[in-house]
Amino acid sequence: MINYTATYTDHYQLTMSQVYFLKGQKDNQAVFDYFFRKLPFDSGYAVFAGLEDLLNALEILTFNKQDLDFLKGKGFNPEFIRYLKKFRFTGNIYTSCEGDIVFPTSPVLQVEANIIEAQIIETILLNILSFQTLIATKASRLRQAAGERKLIDFGLRRAQGAGGYYASRAAFIGGFDATSNVRAGRDYCIPVSGTMAHSFIESYDDELTAFIHFAEEQPDECVLLVDTYDTLKSGLPNAITVAIKMEEKGYRLSGIRLDSGDLAYLSKRSRKMLDNAGLGYVKIAVSNQLDEYIIKSLLEQQAPIDIFGVGTSLVTGHPDAALDGVFKLSFANGKPRIKLSENASKITLPHRKQVFRMLDNDGKFIGADAITLADEKDVDIMYHPLNPLKSLSVKKYNKEPLLQKVMENGVRLSKPRSLSEIAQYSRERLKNLPGEYKRFNYPHIYKVGLSERLKNERDWLIEIHKK
Amino acid sequence: MINYTATYTDHYQLTMSQVYFLKGQKDNQAVFDYFFRKLPFDSGYAVFAGLEDLLNALEILTFNKQDLDFLKGKGFNPEFIRYLKKFRFTGNIYTSCEGDIVFPTSPVLQVEANIIEAQIIETILLNILSFQTLIATKASRLRQAAGERKLIDFGLRRAQGAGGYYASRAAFIGGFDATSNVRAGRDYCIPVSGTMAHSFIESYDDELTAFIHFAEEQPDECVLLVDTYDTLKSGLPNAITVAIKMEEKGYRLSGIRLDSGDLAYLSKRSRKMLDNAGLGYVKIAVSNQLDEYIIKSLLEQQAPIDIFGVGTSLVTGHPDAALDGVFKLSFANGKPRIKLSENASKITLPHRKQVFRMLDNDGKFIGADAITLADEKDVDIMYHPLNPLKSLSVKKYNKEPLLQKVMENGVRLSKPRSLSEIAQYSRERLKNLPGEYKRFNYPHIYKVGLSERLKNERDWLIEIHKK
Repeated sequence: MINYTATYTDHYQLTMSQVYFLKGQKDNQAVFDYFFRKLPFDSGYAVFAGLEDLLNALEILTFNKQDLDFLKGKGFNPEFIRYLKKFRFTGNIYTSCEGDIVFPTSPVLQVEANIIEAQIIETILLNILSFQTLIATKASRLRQAAGERKLIDFGLRRAQGAGGYYASRAAFIGGFDATSNVRAGRDYCIPVSGTMAHSFIESYDDELTAFIHFAEEQPDECVLLVDTYDTLKSGLPNAITVAIKMEEKGYRLSGIRLDSGDLAYLSKRSRKMLDNAGLGYVKIAVSNQLDEYIIKSLLEQQAPIDIFGVGTSLVTGHPDAALDGVFKLSFANGKPRIKLSENASKITLPHRKQVFRMLDNDGKFIGADAITLADEKDVDIMYHPLNPLKSLSVKKYNKEPLLQKVMENGVRLSKPRSLSEIAQYSRERLKNLPGEYKRFNYPHIYKVGLSERLKNERDWLIEIHKK
Repeated sequence: MINYTATYTDHYQLTMSQVYFLKGQKDNQAVFDYFFRKLPFDSGYAVFAGLEDLLNALEILTFNKQDLDFLKGKGFNPEFIRYLKKFRFTGNIYTSCEGDIVFPTSPVLQVEANIIEAQIIETILLNILSFQTLIATKASRLRQAAGERKLIDFGLRRAQGAGGYYASRAAFIGGFDATSNVRAGRDYCIPVSGTMAHSFIESYDDELTAFIHFAEEQPDECVLLVDTYDTLKSGLPNAITVAIKMEEKGYRLSGIRLDSGDLAYLSKRSRKMLDNAGLGYVKIAVSNQLDEYIIKSLLEQQAPIDIFGVGTSLVTGHPDAALDGVFKLSFANGKPRIKLSENASKITLPHRKQVFRMLDNDGKFIGADAITLADEKDVDIMYHPLNPLKSLSVKKYNKEPLLQKVMENGVRLSKPRSLSEIAQYSRERLKNLPGEYKRFNYPHIYKVGLSERLKNERDWLIEIHKK
């Protein structure tokens, strides 16, 4: 939906690139790691999302005439502008599968390209991947809370502008069943769904007539909103009247929706009224500022709810609103690179790398990923990234390499995966993660360690720079 | 940047519209109010933003072939699809000026249109206005904290996908000086700015060479990032060396940037080192998870900072992440409309309305807006919306009507305002708001009341519905 061009980037990427260009460094090769440092929502895991959108964007990313004219006007060097005119991303991408379960510190994706291309794509890469990963993770938590009940994304109106379009995609990866967002449904083949608004009912002189009109024209998927005037005294009785009329014509009312008040209390009272009227099949949908904690609480109270519509908290990734994704140089001009920091956890890992996930014989995750140099084929011991005294023997486990090359010289190596494939894959991966990493309160911490060779390379570089 | 089409909406807008269409109500006229109920960030005011983007979108909003094919595939009625094929927004928009200071409860904007058009545009309207108002308000708070110092938006990489593009626009309205976001700079004429990344320095074998290369190619706007290896022992001494070399060639180092560590301490130490080297003109820029409270604290500590780069908290509107904007029916089919609620503050206000702002003789805001019926020319007393015992005599004040018609039958009545005009207007309006509404802790509550006629109309409708 977005008309991305290569100026969808930070200004400094272009000034730095111009320096590289003018200093004869434009063909220098670099490797950058995409990773994040902290899990959002105090979650025990994250769901990686956004990859296919990123690859689509990279395949077509160019500076168009408007971009080049703008940069010319800003005083960029004419030779450099000529270079940008031919800009295409021609690098390699090594990445985790979209939908996979990922953890802090480990590279989720690596870019290998000339340093100008790698810099220019940094911003769009972070912008796409971090947001969709945030939302897929939030959606996954909502899915944990809702169990098998239906989850619908109602968020577009409260989303951060066009962010809502991508949020609907990521929500589906994280486990949502449908979206109210028609455009996202159209473009990503997400089931679209919705009920009715208060305004529909208010536009009529009485609630019953509004319900009847809606039921007559939407008999196959009719969910009546019952809280416009008085849920239990007006909305429910009118909905029951309509449901009985629909039965006479061979139809069934799909559901009612509660959008205000105490949802636990009202859903129980509504269930009883519907059941007493012989309408046990009519589902109860609820909405109104839901998040994973409210859903969990409603279900702990045995609220008989079948469908949750979730808006703001889902599509904005509230309360975190951002994943702290970063893109760090790990190799340039034939040498491993590192960034130091007084904060040890911010020291970066040099070299192109691989990540091995430890599995038991049933394919379940053990709870440990080892980061190695790219050419390591196996790993026996992994070391804590910060505490040299802590290590873990991982010899006995099966190991799965997570980073795969999906783009070579700017060209995809396989065809795009559909959103439903990605969502299905994500669901299966999450099944392999033990429950203690999925709980909301103090989830178990998934271990991420370094191979001996990687650790030694990093420590050696730290020594050099300290001298 | 977004290729908006009319499916950028919620699914229920289309199902409801289809019912209206099939029931012969497609030409029924309706009025909807856009407003919000709660100020974000515990702020005492909000800055209205997004209007020009909305009007631009409404002028071109249509269902294209892909949209219509999709809806056909979803089983929408063929007659209704034919109707949608000709869909254009042909209604009227009455609105506050973009950039104005606005408050909860009052309609910020009203839409008068046939009910189908009004429903279909609801989602895009909320999506655009609420997000930009959120971000402009956040930016305005950051501006309050930073005083006259320079504020640069660094947020695109951490933004909620393409939301970042609109965030840069809204940040400028709220008082930012520049953005790192090149595409937003290009499209909205926002000054673009930036420094250098750690990766630039790391790609060199030593920091000094990296600085020299950058300074040689960017001598006119050279800000050196000094914290890659060791701020005070490496970054600063190298930056000073470069600054002195630049002076020899007739240039001046623009600044240094600190991106980690204790910014109060490091900025003071850096200032001293620069001043001791005769580099009093070199500015100090800082970044790293800033928000209005951190900036306020840094300045209270007398940190000698000239430039603040703000990313995540600005562009995501952290911690709120959403403004609770709503779009409520107030008139339909020739009659005023209302939504009841057990929560009295959620009862809506019927009729097309006007909002009068009370001003003193200097044009300063008194701290009171009165909502009236659209045809009221003046107001003597305003009533508290919820407490009938509370009222305020406003006879003596000058009054400014806030809602103006800017679109008639789908056509703008005047040409679009530029972003810098809007930002300038906003700055002037904010000057008229007394300081007690601008403070961060428990700001004074701006009064919003109802005229007697509006209050009576509302109360009468509540009575009718309760019967």
